[in-house]
Amino acid sequence: MTKANNLRETEHLQEHLQRVIHLLYQHKMVEGLVPTQTMEHEEFAEALMHRQSLAELRTLLDKLHPADVAHILEAMPLEDRLLIWDLVKAERDGEILLEVSDAVRETLLATMNSGEMLAATEQLDADEIADIAPDLPRYVLDDVFQSLPMEEREKLRAAMSYSEDSVGALMDFEVVTVREDVTLEVVLRYLRRLDELPDHTDQLFVVDREEHVKGILPLNRLLVSDPGAKVGAVMTKKMTVFHPDEKAHEAAQAFERYDLVSAAVVNVEDKLVGRVTVNAVMDFIREESANEALSLAGLQQEEDLFAPVWKSLKNRWTWLAINLVTAFIASRVIGVFEDSIEKLVALAALMPIIAGIGGNSGNQTITMIVRALALGQLNPGNARKLFSKEIGVSAVNGLVWGGVVGLFAFFIYRSFSLSLVMMMAMMLNLLLAAIVGVLIPLTLHRLGRDPAAGSSVMITAVTDSGGFFIFLGLATIFLV
Amino acid sequence: MTKANNLRETEHLQEHLQRVIHLLYQHKMVEGLVPTQTMEHEEFAEALMHRQSLAELRTLLDKLHPADVAHILEAMPLEDRLLIWDLVKAERDGEILLEVSDAVRETLLATMNSGEMLAATEQLDADEIADIAPDLPRYVLDDVFQSLPMEEREKLRAAMSYSEDSVGALMDFEVVTVREDVTLEVVLRYLRRLDELPDHTDQLFVVDREEHVKGILPLNRLLVSDPGAKVGAVMTKKMTVFHPDEKAHEAAQAFERYDLVSAAVVNVEDKLVGRVTVNAVMDFIREESANEALSLAGLQQEEDLFAPVWKSLKNRWTWLAINLVTAFIASRVIGVFEDSIEKLVALAALMPIIAGIGGNSGNQTITMIVRALALGQLNPGNARKLFSKEIGVSAVNGLVWGGVVGLFAFFIYRSFSLSLVMMMAMMLNLLLAAIVGVLIPLTLHRLGRDPAAGSSVMITAVTDSGGFFIFLGLATIFLV
Repeated sequence: MTKANNLRETEHLQEHLQRVIHLLYQHKMVEGLVPTQTMEHEEFAEALMHRQSLAELRTLLDKLHPADVAHILEAMPLEDRLLIWDLVKAERDGEILLEVSDAVRETLLATMNSGEMLAATEQLDADEIADIAPDLPRYVLDDVFQSLPMEEREKLRAAMSYSEDSVGALMDFEVVTVREDVTLEVVLRYLRRLDELPDHTDQLFVVDREEHVKGILPLNRLLVSDPGAKVGAVMTKKMTVFHPDEKAHEAAQAFERYDLVSAAVVNVEDKLVGRVTVNAVMDFIREESANEALSLAGLQQEEDLFAPVWKSLKNRWTWLAINLVTAFIASRVIGVFEDSIEKLVALAALMPIIAGIGGNSGNQTITMIVRALALGQLNPGNARKLFSKEIGVSAVNGLVWGGVVGLFAFFIYRSFSLSLVMMMAMMLNLLLAAIVGVLIPLTLHRLGRDPAAGSSVMITAVTDSGGFFIFLGLATIFLV
Repeated sequence: MTKANNLRETEHLQEHLQRVIHLLYQHKMVEGLVPTQTMEHEEFAEALMHRQSLAELRTLLDKLHPADVAHILEAMPLEDRLLIWDLVKAERDGEILLEVSDAVRETLLATMNSGEMLAATEQLDADEIADIAPDLPRYVLDDVFQSLPMEEREKLRAAMSYSEDSVGALMDFEVVTVREDVTLEVVLRYLRRLDELPDHTDQLFVVDREEHVKGILPLNRLLVSDPGAKVGAVMTKKMTVFHPDEKAHEAAQAFERYDLVSAAVVNVEDKLVGRVTVNAVMDFIREESANEALSLAGLQQEEDLFAPVWKSLKNRWTWLAINLVTAFIASRVIGVFEDSIEKLVALAALMPIIAGIGGNSGNQTITMIVRALALGQLNPGNARKLFSKEIGVSAVNGLVWGGVVGLFAFFIYRSFSLSLVMMMAMMLNLLLAAIVGVLIPLTLHRLGRDPAAGSSVMITAVTDSGGFFIFLGLATIFLV
């Protein structure tokens, strides 16, 4: 199936277009097209819709930034998405594939034949091809390699060799270098011979003949300094450099802390191999925080919003299955106390309160700890301190909420001993939630795993089974 | 209490220092100080510790970037934090206060007298003072205003007038402007008269006599173009501009999409009032995603990791209290069916399975939707489509997991009708979770509220009460 096959005037064309236009309008992407300021949004959308043909929509898309086209594609249900994708000029395919999320890229590539995929990569730099390479079929990737000049081929091979969470994966190769012993005047003349500087060039890298990095020449300094001065006298050696194998997460933190726009990447011999720019870092930060949110909730990865049902299921099943096992365990814990419940059926109605509040409180603790770990604020030196704080919080919570649930139980069932048991169980389960809420992410972190992954499912498992056991156990001892 | 009062050689000094050094080392902030490459981390930390005095630590701190000092302060328990804060040179107070989180800033300001606070603000620009102004006592703020020159005072007043989530709050005033009718040669000479350019200057703003923005002159173009050319001929009119009242969230999306480093902020008359830079945007994105994670878990705001217990409690109580109310409701739902449970005690053991899986699945849905809303991928046009997808996912989940829990129930209790009821209840509760998981964030969003706020607590409330009602209701009809 090729892209062209999808280009069919569907019966629902009007409906598709309306959705696209609504989206375009909503994000102010066609602001320039509004005929008068006073025209209402809906009026405008309708006006556009009625005079809109596929050709006109194509013209509109041509004017949009590739990132905007990517956004539109991501926000569209599959059918609309492919319609729009067909309207995009073939020579823009590459830059747009680069901007969409992994999940959406898959759906777009699925409609392209190998020739189209090859053509799309021809518009991209080596480091950009490396970004989409994992989604390309093996034989297309071979063709891509064949079609590249030797130098680019080596760059692509290098870029693909770095793991996804390393600095190497964020790196590009667009460095402008100068020598230490020339004057700024010479540098300025050299730059003028270029057609343009690479995006995000805020500094030139000063290297020797063997490409060893000697320092950086910020454009700001180049512009305010005497043109007669030597590069060596104006450059600064105070610079942040990264190694390609360093964690991308650490590079991102450095960019945030030191407000960098670009930074050199050097190999073990201190030779310049590339640079990282702030836009790559910003994308990385977004993805990282998205993954944190998703994995806390027990989703494996970012999902195409309009993924087919079976794809979504694959993404969600692991943690649901684990959750099921923990629920079975909790159920068996209750099963052990069936005799007690038969004698005092109020226990059945009260036990979910203990478990629920415990889970909620544990989730608060876990969220705090996961964030502190992500920000590098936790270390063996202060973990104990944090532990005692969380236990303090849970103790006060236990007293207060334990009292409240005790009162609730007394009000409903008029049993003083039952409400005492309720209060004690609440306190103990909150204590358990605090301890385990600190331990789960810390342990995962120490094992080198993602501390967020399914933490929420696990803490709930502990506070459920634990809460039921504590409450029903106490009740069996003191009440039944 | 003044800062100086805290500077006391505590008995636990060695312990404090060890923690600080560990942290410094951990984050490679003192890498330059490692004597030999082969020396082990621990060895090094110990060596440092033994020859370390307060004075030496002070020297070490002086060498650190303010953001690194801020990081150390945030990762320290209160006592250590104040010890370090005392060692920081007074003239660096301002830049460090700017870098720490709101919660930690409060703890630092609490140790400073009004003179120290005033001195700290004297090192800052108007837009930076505006960032910490909400934490300053009223009378200190009045003094700050008095001490500023007229122009700065106006800027501070303006900066403080913008709401926290607006572009105005991200804005600074460090713009370099040029006229359209001069040559690049003149611009270059003008720049050379400056001591330095503001950080993150990647473009000059081209304005007329009335400060109307005419275009931008990227430094990249300035450097590669013929110096004899006019600014007007080289500048570009294709630029992203913001209004101070626009949502900061939208500006952040534009920075990400169009890979901006800086952008002009103009008022309603198109006059230049300031600029936004990528470092402010990156901080905003971090904060925004932190808030999303926190509010999903039912925390009101970012907490100082070592906040005193009562402060943490305040941050967590709202949602715990709401959770308690929903737990009481769930408990009363069970209470209604106490007769059924008394007759068939297995129901008590099985009901948490239905509620638990429902809650987990609902949380997955809600996390997806909250993310889609944050990315602006949801609109009335595609909400229905998304709805049917989530219902499809939950239907398949219901069949599969319903089957599994049915088998589980049959295996434990050997009752075919009980396992059928279990299966049906599972399916219905997953359906409920999907519907409510979509509706809660969409409704909050439509009401102009934060769609993440406590969503997790609410979905659990629905799947608990709903799950108990469905399961016990079905059981009462078909089994009892």
